[in-house]
Amino acid sequence: MTDYRTLRVALLGAGAVGSQVADLLLKHGDELADRAGATLELAGIAVRDVDAKRDADLPRELFTTDAETLIVGSDIVIELMGGIEPARTQVLHAIASGADVVTANKALLATHGSEVFEAADQVGAEVYYEAAAAGAIPIIRPLRDSLAGDRVVRIMGIVNGTTNYILDRMDTEGADFADVLAQAQALGYAEADPTADVEGYDAAQKAAILASLAFHTTVPLDAVHREGITSVDAAMIESARHAGYVIKLLAVCERLAATEEGATEAISVRVYPALVERTHPLASVHGANNAVFVQAEAAGDLMFYGAGAGGVQTASAVLGDVVSAARRHIAGGVGVGESTRANLPAVPIGHVITRYQITLEVDDQPGVLATVAGILSEGRVSIATVEQTVIEADENSRSGGSARLVIGTHKAREQDLSETVERLAASGVVERVVSVLRVEGN
Amino acid sequence: MTDYRTLRVALLGAGAVGSQVADLLLKHGDELADRAGATLELAGIAVRDVDAKRDADLPRELFTTDAETLIVGSDIVIELMGGIEPARTQVLHAIASGADVVTANKALLATHGSEVFEAADQVGAEVYYEAAAAGAIPIIRPLRDSLAGDRVVRIMGIVNGTTNYILDRMDTEGADFADVLAQAQALGYAEADPTADVEGYDAAQKAAILASLAFHTTVPLDAVHREGITSVDAAMIESARHAGYVIKLLAVCERLAATEEGATEAISVRVYPALVERTHPLASVHGANNAVFVQAEAAGDLMFYGAGAGGVQTASAVLGDVVSAARRHIAGGVGVGESTRANLPAVPIGHVITRYQITLEVDDQPGVLATVAGILSEGRVSIATVEQTVIEADENSRSGGSARLVIGTHKAREQDLSETVERLAASGVVERVVSVLRVEGN
Repeated sequence: MTDYRTLRVALLGAGAVGSQVADLLLKHGDELADRAGATLELAGIAVRDVDAKRDADLPRELFTTDAETLIVGSDIVIELMGGIEPARTQVLHAIASGADVVTANKALLATHGSEVFEAADQVGAEVYYEAAAAGAIPIIRPLRDSLAGDRVVRIMGIVNGTTNYILDRMDTEGADFADVLAQAQALGYAEADPTADVEGYDAAQKAAILASLAFHTTVPLDAVHREGITSVDAAMIESARHAGYVIKLLAVCERLAATEEGATEAISVRVYPALVERTHPLASVHGANNAVFVQAEAAGDLMFYGAGAGGVQTASAVLGDVVSAARRHIAGGVGVGESTRANLPAVPIGHVITRYQITLEVDDQPGVLATVAGILSEGRVSIATVEQTVIEADENSRSGGSARLVIGTHKAREQDLSETVERLAASGVVERVVSVLRVEGN
Repeated sequence: MTDYRTLRVALLGAGAVGSQVADLLLKHGDELADRAGATLELAGIAVRDVDAKRDADLPRELFTTDAETLIVGSDIVIELMGGIEPARTQVLHAIASGADVVTANKALLATHGSEVFEAADQVGAEVYYEAAAAGAIPIIRPLRDSLAGDRVVRIMGIVNGTTNYILDRMDTEGADFADVLAQAQALGYAEADPTADVEGYDAAQKAAILASLAFHTTVPLDAVHREGITSVDAAMIESARHAGYVIKLLAVCERLAATEEGATEAISVRVYPALVERTHPLASVHGANNAVFVQAEAAGDLMFYGAGAGGVQTASAVLGDVVSAARRHIAGGVGVGESTRANLPAVPIGHVITRYQITLEVDDQPGVLATVAGILSEGRVSIATVEQTVIEADENSRSGGSARLVIGTHKAREQDLSETVERLAASGVVERVVSVLRVEGN
């Protein structure tokens, strides 16, 4: 065996991902050394409770509750605690101590990324976070490096496994949200408190990270428009299927051309359940899998597919970062840092231009369609397709029951659309606005 | 604008990719500078003929026929000449002059990769080649970096756009190879001399590059088993469809477990037309697109999808490498170099274990199936499925015509299989071995 320089690796956290990282580091030490050009010595694992049960059988003497001491003198610190504090403090401590940091902490990066990256820049350290955006799928390096010479136009990502699992089951079984959520919780695909997933918070954090990389711009979490999937019901899924769509929770990161003379480009970052054509590559992402569809000016359409979560899968991404950090230590030089100089402004959701599917329950009376069409036209929303079906016919008359109108629009401005929908709701002829969904994917 | 350090970029070659690289470098100079942290000055473009027609409108004064002089003093040399010489000489000259090299030259890397990488190691330079394996698809960094902490088990790649276009058209139109090839040539999807594509040479070069990265092993081109698609006909495609498969030209890179006590792991790298189940993600890669399906021990199944060729698409990958090279120049340190210390031996094709579909024309006589089954069993080839259809019945007797036998095997050793097929061919009952195809994808 080659005689390599030894690098000291500190691990913070030994949950589902952390225990797998430790296990693989110990099991494949020689192999990783050959790849990194350095021996990776796991110096210790900082946890809250040394005696807690772990997913892997790890040497007890590695565990400590004293993260701060463990960090000092480490070359690489792997932060897998999750959450903002004490993760933020320990990461800053690691950087200040001269270590490179590897983290899977999307919450931390989406909320305190600038602070962390700036601290790293100050001392020439590097922060690696391949596991923070789409689990095991290599998406950070492709965006950060491979596409750095291109202009990303749009990202559409299925970046939350729990919601994709739920929507996929609803689609295949015709089941309702609550039932599938309960199933998912029983199977361990959803947390006891599913809020972070089903309300889109997790996806929004990942969207902020992906958009920052894709557009070379610091995208704060509060610039991300967020809607969850709790209002998606079996009827919406069925109606989507009928129209050739599937409903997916999408993280959409979009570059918007300058619309006026002298104006600059802008970006839009948003998370919501959207209609995706069944022929689109994203439509065939099933179960808890993730996929990121990227459109770039020169490269065209790309897609990255794989497991979005899971302890051992995410550990793969973390260990790739550890090897990268080790190689950088051996090669010398300072960290490359984040590319954020484009500074593109993020527009509010009202400025977004996309297509919509509006489902209405209307009086089944002569002239109703004309009234609805008139309101849409006044609101600058152009109709692409209409399908009207009678849902409750009054047998004693030629009309008078209710009809369902499913309207597919051409591209419209979100603000125009939402104002128009309000006007529809207030009009005498519309009994109920059943749903308004965006259609994504050109 | 920030005042950046200027890096001198030399471009060798201005063909379909080179002219787009030059065009984008000039058009997006400010943006690229912000991302790289350095101004990228296109110092010149070395070509054979300064007056040749280009795909982009480029300043005439940039052109020179003197590559050697252009290279001297350059920080980054982009080699897009293709072919072995003079590319090899100029790349070595660039490295010796202290430049980092960006290349899309798969032929050069597959045949002289070791020489080039060693030369770079000697002086601490770096060689980037994202565009060499699957055009615009970011696959080099994912294998080299993101998966560096994992163990790749298998890669199945559709890495040649021309053959995928041909096979896809044959599949959708039921057309024969020669007709679709002629079409593809007329549309510019295939070269006038299509040998490199249809005989699998191009895919074999890419397979060698992917396997080297995935298995941290120098894989010489002659370790890659190669078969083209010229023998694939409409009947084979139809028969594949009937059995639920599609035929794809696959580059398969596989890690083989040590089978005996004390033996080491090995790898197999092979290119051939194979049957892929229609439900497999690779089956839905249509037209001239490429995709690389990767199975890793920890990460599980990943897929990378996009355009495998095209001037501007490939230029995206090249420019990503240019930005990476520039960032490295600014950050300092030496090149990381290739990871090849695993040194896994490549086994010959005879050692490969996979599944097969054997199609035979046999005498339609009693006892024929028993004879065929006996020969397979003696040859250690286990039958999974059999379908027999009469193709030419003799109306005057109960038998005596021909039958077609389509046999799906369980996993078998290639050498056993090919010896068994020879024995089948020599047996009295088999009139013709119609085809023998491997089945890939578990």
